[in-house]
This record gives sequence, structure tokens and C-alpha cells, in this order.
Amino acid sequence: MQNDAFQDHYPEEISHCYGCGKNNPEGHQLKSYWQHIDEQNLIASTTVARCIPDKKYTAIPGFVYGGMIASLIDCHGTGSASAMAYLSQGRELGSLPPMRFVTGALNVSFLAPTPQDVELTLVGKFSEVKERKIIVDITLSANDVICAKGQVIAVLMPDSMIPKT
Amino acid sequence: MQNDAFQDHYPEEISHCYGCGKNNPEGHQLKSYWQHIDEQNLIASTTVARCIPDKKYTAIPGFVYGGMIASLIDCHGTGSASAMAYLSQGRELGSLPPMRFVTGALNVSFLAPTPQDVELTLVGKFSEVKERKIIVDITLSANDVICAKGQVIAVLMPDSMIPKT
Repeated sequence: MQNDAFQDHYPEEISHCYGCGKNNPEGHQLKSYWQHIDEQNLIASTTVARCIPDKKYTAIPGFVYGGMIASLIDCHGTGSASAMAYLSQGRELGSLPPMRFVTGALNVSFLAPTPQDVELTLVGKFSEVKERKIIVDITLSANDVICAKGQVIAVLMPDSMIPKT
Repeated sequence: MQNDAFQDHYPEEISHCYGCGKNNPEGHQLKSYWQHIDEQNLIASTTVARCIPDKKYTAIPGFVYGGMIASLIDCHGTGSASAMAYLSQGRELGSLPPMRFVTGALNVSFLAPTPQDVELTLVGKFSEVKERKIIVDITLSANDVICAKGQVIAVLMPDSMIPKT
């Protein structure tokens, strides 16, 4: 299957997010992808993102700071929600009108310190998929150890938030 | 009363947090203070922090990104927890051995878009204070409008996480 990063299909005028926007050169530019698409049961599909946080995002020396972990979970969650919205409606990623999601609520449990200089893997699963609300459950792992779990309650971005071009 | 920033009393070797460490020149360097100390009922004391996020921490143009909001709530929560631990034990901030808190869980509800270029005010209240676990409930406001609410379940940092000098 074609498997572009979800965030690379966000409209240009709303691609400035520090966590995942391709138009924010100083940000993390997180990229999320389909890990598995279950054609028989779309809600069982999973998503994945990988990154190595820059060294400056320290908690205490040697460990990634919690705000970075929350940011990655947040952006992987809203990206996954957007991709699932397109998938469940049978639409091409990025086709118009855009379906971009924002975070209504973000819950993160920190299970173990997250080491620096290690590739982090985020895997997203879906526990609720509605037209305007999608819930994504995410694990964040380092060296195959789950360091954090999160849930993102993502809601379809209202048109009023999209800048007029 | 003397009212130094809580984070300025963190030990030097654990003051590198991107969110609030005075030894991280690239980070947010959030500073938290007592807003009110209730001498009769310490748990009713409140904390405050203020900051204007740098422009690069964009969600979509004009609004602060959720990861920044989560970071501020996280660091204000752990800072408030540390200060409450010292207060409730009648100890001077920063006295040894250190009582630094880490986040066990972070929950954030995004209630309204958070505007950029506006001073954000975080106010912390305490819903549980135990020796090793403190729960801080936080509001984040812009222009007197609450844009996000959060809860930080903070736990005393284990000695094993403190780098040996």
C-alpha cells in the first residue's frame, strides 16, 4: 500500500505544529504511518511513529522529559485520528475538505524513565471511531520496553480554527 | 514571605529539564511560586506560574501547541508538589536531602484554543498530599479565560534517578 506520513497530507496552512508540522523547521516533525490496515475491521488497524528526540529535551540527564513524551503521544494521536477518519470514509489522505483533528483530552501514564539517544516507537490503536470524535490509545516504547501509555481524545477541528488563505 | 521560584532550588545536577530547568538554556525555564500559603490548612495553599511561550511553539498559526500546554502543566505540577513537600514538612525549599518529584500521570483537558503572544497563567491547587505522592490540579488561563485544565500525579523521585556527582 502507499504509506505516506499522515502529517505530510495536512493542508499547508495548518502544517505548523511544533510537534508534527512539516512547515515548522524548529519542531519535532513527527511522522505517523499505518502499521497495519485491517480491511475486514478498520478499527483494528494500527499506526506507528518513530523518533529520536533531540538531546536538549532532557528531564534529568539521560532521560527524555515528560513534555516531549506528552507531545509525541498527542501528535501521534491526532495524526492517527485524521488518518482513520479518511480510511473509514474511504477517502484519500489529504483529499478536500480536510479532516484535521485537535486534542480534546490527553492522558499520559509514565511507567518507566524514557532513555535518551534511543529510537522511540509509538503505536496507536483505536478504541472509538465516530465522525467527529476518535479515541486513540498509544504506547511509547524504547528498546522494546513500554515507557509510557497515553490516550488522546481527538475531535474534528472546527472550520473556525483553519486560517483563511 | 520569601518567595523564590521552586525550580531555582532544585539541585544543580537535576536542573536540566527542558520545561523548567535553570541549567537548560534552550528550554522553557518555567518558574513556579507560592500564590497563597494557608498557614491554618496547608493543603489549601495555591501556586502560580506565568509565561509567554515562544512563537515557534505553534499548533496552528495563532495558537499554542498542545505539547507546550501539557509541558507547562507537567512542570508546574511537579514543581508545586516539591514545594508542598517542603512546606508540609516544615523544611526550607532546597534543603537536603532533595525532594524532587516526577510525574506518574498527566491528564490534560483542552477547553479552548490557547492564543499565542499572551501571558499564560497557571494556578495549582492540591487535592492529595502524602509523603511520596502529591496530586496537583492546575488551570491554564489566557486573558482570564481558562484554556486548559490538568492534573499531575507527582511521585517523589527515587534516589536511583539522581545522577551521582
